Amino acid sequence: MPVASDADRDDAARPEPESEMIRAVLAGNRRAAGRLISRIENGGRDAESLLRQLYPHTGKGHVVGITGPPGGGKSTLVDELLLLVRASGKNVAVIAVDPNSPFSGGAILGDRIRMMRHAVDRGVFIRSMGARGTLGGLARTTGDAVRVLDAMGFDPVLVETVGVGQSELEIAEQADTTVVVIPPGLGDGVQAIKAGIMEIADIFVVNKADQPQASKVVSDIRDLLHMEESVREWTPPIVSTAALRGEGVPDLWMRIQQHRDFLETSGELRRRRERRLEREIMDIVWGRVRQDLLEPRFESADFRSMLDDVLARRMDPYEAAERATPETVAGLQR
Amino acid sequence: MPVASDADRDDAARPEPESEMIRAVLAGNRRAAGRLISRIENGGRDAESLLRQLYPHTGKGHVVGITGPPGGGKSTLVDELLLLVRASGKNVAVIAVDPNSPFSGGAILGDRIRMMRHAVDRGVFIRSMGARGTLGGLARTTGDAVRVLDAMGFDPVLVETVGVGQSELEIAEQADTTVVVIPPGLGDGVQAIKAGIMEIADIFVVNKADQPQASKVVSDIRDLLHMEESVREWTPPIVSTAALRGEGVPDLWMRIQQHRDFLETSGELRRRRERRLEREIMDIVWGRVRQDLLEPRFESADFRSMLDDVLARRMDPYEAAERATPETVAGLQR
Repeated sequence: MPVASDADRDDAARPEPESEMIRAVLAGNRRAAGRLISRIENGGRDAESLLRQLYPHTGKGHVVGITGPPGGGKSTLVDELLLLVRASGKNVAVIAVDPNSPFSGGAILGDRIRMMRHAVDRGVFIRSMGARGTLGGLARTTGDAVRVLDAMGFDPVLVETVGVGQSELEIAEQADTTVVVIPPGLGDGVQAIKAGIMEIADIFVVNKADQPQASKVVSDIRDLLHMEESVREWTPPIVSTAALRGEGVPDLWMRIQQHRDFLETSGELRRRRERRLEREIMDIVWGRVRQDLLEPRFESADFRSMLDDVLARRMDPYEAAERATPETVAGLQR
Repeated sequence: MPVASDADRDDAARPEPESEMIRAVLAGNRRAAGRLISRIENGGRDAESLLRQLYPHTGKGHVVGITGPPGGGKSTLVDELLLLVRASGKNVAVIAVDPNSPFSGGAILGDRIRMMRHAVDRGVFIRSMGARGTLGGLARTTGDAVRVLDAMGFDPVLVETVGVGQSELEIAEQADTTVVVIPPGLGDGVQAIKAGIMEIADIFVVNKADQPQASKVVSDIRDLLHMEESVREWTPPIVSTAALRGEGVPDLWMRIQQHRDFLETSGELRRRRERRLEREIMDIVWGRVRQDLLEPRFESADFRSMLDDVLARRMDPYEAAERATPETVAGLQR
């Protein structure tokens, strides 16, 4: 059974020497960073080689996800948080992700307006991303873009998701700390959003705390948290903010830093990053198995004739998959 | 190199004899169909065995996807279409899919209200699905639910998606014919939604045609269609409707039937279903490779120690994936 020798492996595995683009990014060149993120969005082995060169320089910054249903004032909150963090002398980056943007394109405009507010400040980097043209899947592309900004020394890197669906949950998994912003008007709807959201929230924010229903939402979230029987190492705090007036934002920033401390001292940071890396490696393996083995196999005459049988209902898709698998995988030994 | 013999394969591949549940579904038992769809949502090999028994009875009905940004009046349109199709004596099913429903839960309520309208009509079946609890991914789960209703003789099966993101595009791919409903208030926004939507639309609908901006939207879509240089076999018609008053709905139904005829006579139906099956088989293969090979492999001491190296930035995830792949796949030969 021929197995790739270490020499073969090293040949395939060795990244190129640090390219000019990577050197520029590491030196803090913002245009180069923007171009690199665009190449990540376009995907392919080209971006892969650059990401491999970047990887040793990553893992330093705190990645904070900010997510939740529309109407919670997330953008205002992120803007205020950005100003506050900036005032403390830290370099901060924001990635605004809108999985719906092939339809809406809305995030891009808001992004430009935001950029203008901070145009002269080299300690701030803002970038929006949409599902369009992200070949590797939006969650993975977001994670790679985070690495670019992390390697440049931005800390924290804020990842703001615009929507509320499954994709956003996956994007939230790219963060070390996840802040869930609940709109004050949600009322009894807090019950409805329980699924999915309770599992990912490290910190809850009820923004627009000056609105009449806000205190009801706070107590609803508290009730939900109490209903959880399990003893957690970290109980998500509920922070009330009025971001338009800057109120509560310092409290939120303190909670984020507390959570970072918790992550580090408890070992949870390592566990989260380990799980994330595992998923990423799985993803890379699958990309290769699919591209190098399955896709060529699916073009073979044998497979096409099997597909005819499936179309004609003489065979079912599960049997076809079963018949395709061992031969395909045997193909790896070539 | 040991390869599974035909005997082994047959043993693994042979579906169980038709179970009571499948017999009930094929006999038109609606409760059994509901239970089967729930089992599909829960996933696993249990649902697989049932789906294999069902498969020979599928592929008859016309699957019509109805998608587009919020505010277009999709639900009203689907309701009116349903009444019209029903009046022509056909049995019609609706699957309403909301990938955001772990957050919103909204579709379910609307679904119950709709069900009540048609509660006594055995020629109508309505079911909503959300991302929650769909282990196989929402697009695939939707495709499998379509098969249940198709096997029962519902034709057409309408698949309505509530949201507008990447997930909805994938769900739309489960349809033979895709109707894209554009809100009249979108105005210049039609340009913005071009990406993604132009590729999947077989028929455009501008609903709420009585609203002032509707004719602008119609001409915007027409302009976009003209800009496409390629000579298409099928040019997507633009249908104006006022679903609340039932206007234009017969025209839409005629266009849907025309597209079905086109699909059949041009061979495009076969090509679309072939592509869909290919993706499905790929998906099944991946599920097995991941579950049977990669996941156990990822628990090995070797892999955990490699993961330590990646976490410590002594190795990058691409190299880890490369080192994991051949051994893992060699594991298939056990």
